[in-house]
Amino acid sequence: MSVRRSTPLDIVALADRLRAGDRRALAQAITLIESTRADHRDAAESLLARLLPITRQTFRIGLSGVPGVGKSTFIEAFGLHLLAQGQRVAVLAVDPSSQVTGGSILGDKTRMEELTRHLDAFIRPSPAGHTLGGVARRTREALLLCEAAGFDTVIVETVGVGQSETAVSEMTDLFCLLLPPGGGDELQGIKKGIVELADMIVVNKADGDLAAAANRAVAEYHAATGFLRPTRPDWRPPVLKCSALSRQGIDAVWATMMAFSARYWGDGSIPTRRAAQAAGWMWRDIGDMLVERLQSAPTLARLRQDCAAAVARGDLSPSIGARRLVDAFLD
Amino acid sequence: MSVRRSTPLDIVALADRLRAGDRRALAQAITLIESTRADHRDAAESLLARLLPITRQTFRIGLSGVPGVGKSTFIEAFGLHLLAQGQRVAVLAVDPSSQVTGGSILGDKTRMEELTRHLDAFIRPSPAGHTLGGVARRTREALLLCEAAGFDTVIVETVGVGQSETAVSEMTDLFCLLLPPGGGDELQGIKKGIVELADMIVVNKADGDLAAAANRAVAEYHAATGFLRPTRPDWRPPVLKCSALSRQGIDAVWATMMAFSARYWGDGSIPTRRAAQAAGWMWRDIGDMLVERLQSAPTLARLRQDCAAAVARGDLSPSIGARRLVDAFLD
Repeated sequence: MSVRRSTPLDIVALADRLRAGDRRALAQAITLIESTRADHRDAAESLLARLLPITRQTFRIGLSGVPGVGKSTFIEAFGLHLLAQGQRVAVLAVDPSSQVTGGSILGDKTRMEELTRHLDAFIRPSPAGHTLGGVARRTREALLLCEAAGFDTVIVETVGVGQSETAVSEMTDLFCLLLPPGGGDELQGIKKGIVELADMIVVNKADGDLAAAANRAVAEYHAATGFLRPTRPDWRPPVLKCSALSRQGIDAVWATMMAFSARYWGDGSIPTRRAAQAAGWMWRDIGDMLVERLQSAPTLARLRQDCAAAVARGDLSPSIGARRLVDAFLD
Repeated sequence: MSVRRSTPLDIVALADRLRAGDRRALAQAITLIESTRADHRDAAESLLARLLPITRQTFRIGLSGVPGVGKSTFIEAFGLHLLAQGQRVAVLAVDPSSQVTGGSILGDKTRMEELTRHLDAFIRPSPAGHTLGGVARRTREALLLCEAAGFDTVIVETVGVGQSETAVSEMTDLFCLLLPPGGGDELQGIKKGIVELADMIVVNKADGDLAAAANRAVAEYHAATGFLRPTRPDWRPPVLKCSALSRQGIDAVWATMMAFSARYWGDGSIPTRRAAQAAGWMWRDIGDMLVERLQSAPTLARLRQDCAAAVARGDLSPSIGARRLVDAFLD
């Protein structure tokens, strides 16, 4: 990694190159924020301090869908459509399982060949990590770096089968759920909670033999959205269809998203929501960091062992054990 | 509350009465652990220290089901069956929404009239609380108190529509999901993640017009469990049917649960799992407590405000804001 070659890093130069839109500098900067080395964390902090705040109007789109729905084909078609509109597009991912399964869709760049080659596109697979919190934190910071590098639209994709959807919806402006044309039966495979997060539903594979099924699915999903608590008080999630393969309906998907963006930038609710999202992340990070510090405090080694053992034996209630450790830690 | 009348509390006497199985003492002790007053927390800590560990073989059953499935009727029939077997039965609840909606099923004791009156039964509604963490912590400690008071089986019920199922499955030995006889279509209303938690599925309302539907549902759910990751490597969740209303099939439900309990007490996996559950709760409590302390530290008032404002404005990344606050807090 170039980050390791050039220690000490010239953060000023890196920030300048990144701000000029240099994709190589952006990739280096993301590698830096993904690093767990203490000096890299400090460098990443200086870099972010130079680049923030981002004052342009940008668009953060969360995208989720079960395996097999054609997500990478959709991202390719959708990304190319945006490029044709003069947008610069970045695609990031949150997939805490990617280390284990190697299953991150963005690893499979062969399905996004055209997009990958385009100079105004930037694609980055999910950072590795054992905890969703760690993976999400790195993706959030990568998102800020993409915006600083002049990308107008950042798509954050996730695999649609786990807890990461909430994390993605909490770092984006609009959460789009990509669904198969099978309707209710296939919807069973998706957690109900994920559908409730959706600002917008797109039925993919509306082509060939599946065209009729896709129409029924649109009607069915549309009816279903009437029973869900809306993601915003004045918004009923639109249900659209498209064929990413034949690149049909992608323009309508983007038009709907643009209308959403215009409306909620217009009334100020996107910046308000981003501020609340950022505050939420800060408090979550605080919790994670404090627990890590307590877990690694050398003076507490003995007490940690004693409390853990007493709690495991059932001699001590978990919350009393917690209180003892917290009191000793803060003393 | 009697807790308030008798300050300072005679913890030794309360512990003795509770250990003798006095339901009034148990109710007082639970009120004590639910209190947020600092002196009550200290008293609760002394009380738990006197009562732990509980060395008898007990059984902790989690029970969940969507509204309308007949959960309170089931608990009444099931509880009475256990009493007839000579068991002492306690029923607790985890329902973080109960403060808002007043919807806790245990509030509706009219459906559990016989059980409520029985001297060997103890029923306690969900503690109030704004966070799932706080509600779950109090229910876990109430569960320990019930066991200390000689209750053999503790049923922890939850409403089946939220995040609380995971919390309940993490404080119990067996998680039982009560389902309606409608099969797949009605299963859609349940989060997929909840079905995956189930060690056992019981189709209720297998009576009258619904008897045939219930049989189909049993077959359907049984087939479905073949596709789920099992909760234990050597256990495929049994699917049973019953009619809580006509009190049919309750004996088979209990026999299956007893077989589960005998098997996993026999191979030592219930105590091992309880130890791991307790450790998990301790670390979660540590996180909650540390964040609360940081949030209320008077010396950090200004920095909290500054960081929160900078993060909200987008001048500061959430994780950098978090790091500053954590560093200042621990200095």
